[in-house]
Amino acid sequence: MKLLAPTLLAVALSTTLPASHAQQQPNPAVPGYAYGQRSLAKAPYTMADLKALQASLLFTEEDVKALRQSKAIVADQTDAILDVWYGFVASTPELVHFFSDARTGKPDGAYLEAVRKRFALWILDTADADYDQRWLDWQYEIGLRHNRLQKNKIDRAPSVAQVNFRYIPALTIPITTTLKPFLARKGASAAEVEKMHAAWVKSVLMQSILWSQPYIKDGEF
Amino acid sequence: MKLLAPTLLAVALSTTLPASHAQQQPNPAVPGYAYGQRSLAKAPYTMADLKALQASLLFTEEDVKALRQSKAIVADQTDAILDVWYGFVASTPELVHFFSDARTGKPDGAYLEAVRKRFALWILDTADADYDQRWLDWQYEIGLRHNRLQKNKIDRAPSVAQVNFRYIPALTIPITTTLKPFLARKGASAAEVEKMHAAWVKSVLMQSILWSQPYIKDGEF
Repeated sequence: MKLLAPTLLAVALSTTLPASHAQQQPNPAVPGYAYGQRSLAKAPYTMADLKALQASLLFTEEDVKALRQSKAIVADQTDAILDVWYGFVASTPELVHFFSDARTGKPDGAYLEAVRKRFALWILDTADADYDQRWLDWQYEIGLRHNRLQKNKIDRAPSVAQVNFRYIPALTIPITTTLKPFLARKGASAAEVEKMHAAWVKSVLMQSILWSQPYIKDGEF
Repeated sequence: MKLLAPTLLAVALSTTLPASHAQQQPNPAVPGYAYGQRSLAKAPYTMADLKALQASLLFTEEDVKALRQSKAIVADQTDAILDVWYGFVASTPELVHFFSDARTGKPDGAYLEAVRKRFALWILDTADADYDQRWLDWQYEIGLRHNRLQKNKIDRAPSVAQVNFRYIPALTIPITTTLKPFLARKGASAAEVEKMHAAWVKSVLMQSILWSQPYIKDGEF
């Protein structure tokens, strides 16, 4: 599979990334992981906004169930999933750019590693599908950290100033496409895998829309 | 299926919409349909930008082939597809709002009808998957027509000022989910239907990202 093909860059990155980061449970000790922390700003969108957005993308209680079903399946595979995702990012120059040192243009290993630890927790949080004000505030914080308003700050990374908007919704596809085989590895039926995959597509797209809010002109979100 | 269930509003809309608008070929005589017209502004994104975006969402030549395969399948079903899509919009208050008269709050039948004719051509254009500068310029125009910069102008519609950004990428899901059964109605194998559906998801998401450009703060797209 092309995505899994090692590239020089993927090999280079793998040498900077320790092998195992699987997180069984959200772990507030991961630096910069702030889900549920009171210090977070209040999201500029409400639970009512979220419900309207969910209706518009056909996100229902069935999707919540399917996401939660996926949690036990992905819980001990987060490290392998992240190997695939990081391999894809590493082999796509447009994407690895956002992890690069702004001066040298080379990937910043420490920054990649810091994000990776939070990414493992994000997989579990997405599977939890527990939507409340805390969750909304965390989505807003994640969006700010992609935008030039906050990128790099929490990790004190010397990286480029922003992740351009266009790549945020786009990543819905590689994340969910490469996740699908992992959903099928623990004995779920083909129909269950389809449902879990569809729920993941909706959830990641929904989150990417919320993360996009800081990029949108005033009054147009 | 819940999406197909008639609702009072869907029934009300159906009485304002003539039964058949299937377009076999793009038809420049449809008012406001301007794909390929030299009067269009040049898109603020380039073919190189498009290629980078396609790489980031795993869009390949295989997807182009699958989209083109879908054209013969959807060509004589556009009217039935639009019945389902309009039924979904009509039954979702957050969405029908964007077709409402700004003064009365009621759906504007003439506006819905004008958009519907172009929507039929959009289905065929999406299946054509013919990406060049003309196509980019048309995507930019479509984006402007959702944004407050241009919404309503081409139809002289008395409707609300904008389609809020959040609903544009979100509509990837209902459009492609409800399309899937239509892709299966002409004898394609289950594997081919899956490939065509996946290609449609990528294409619609890609287009919705391009349409979002007018909503994005300067320099952040």
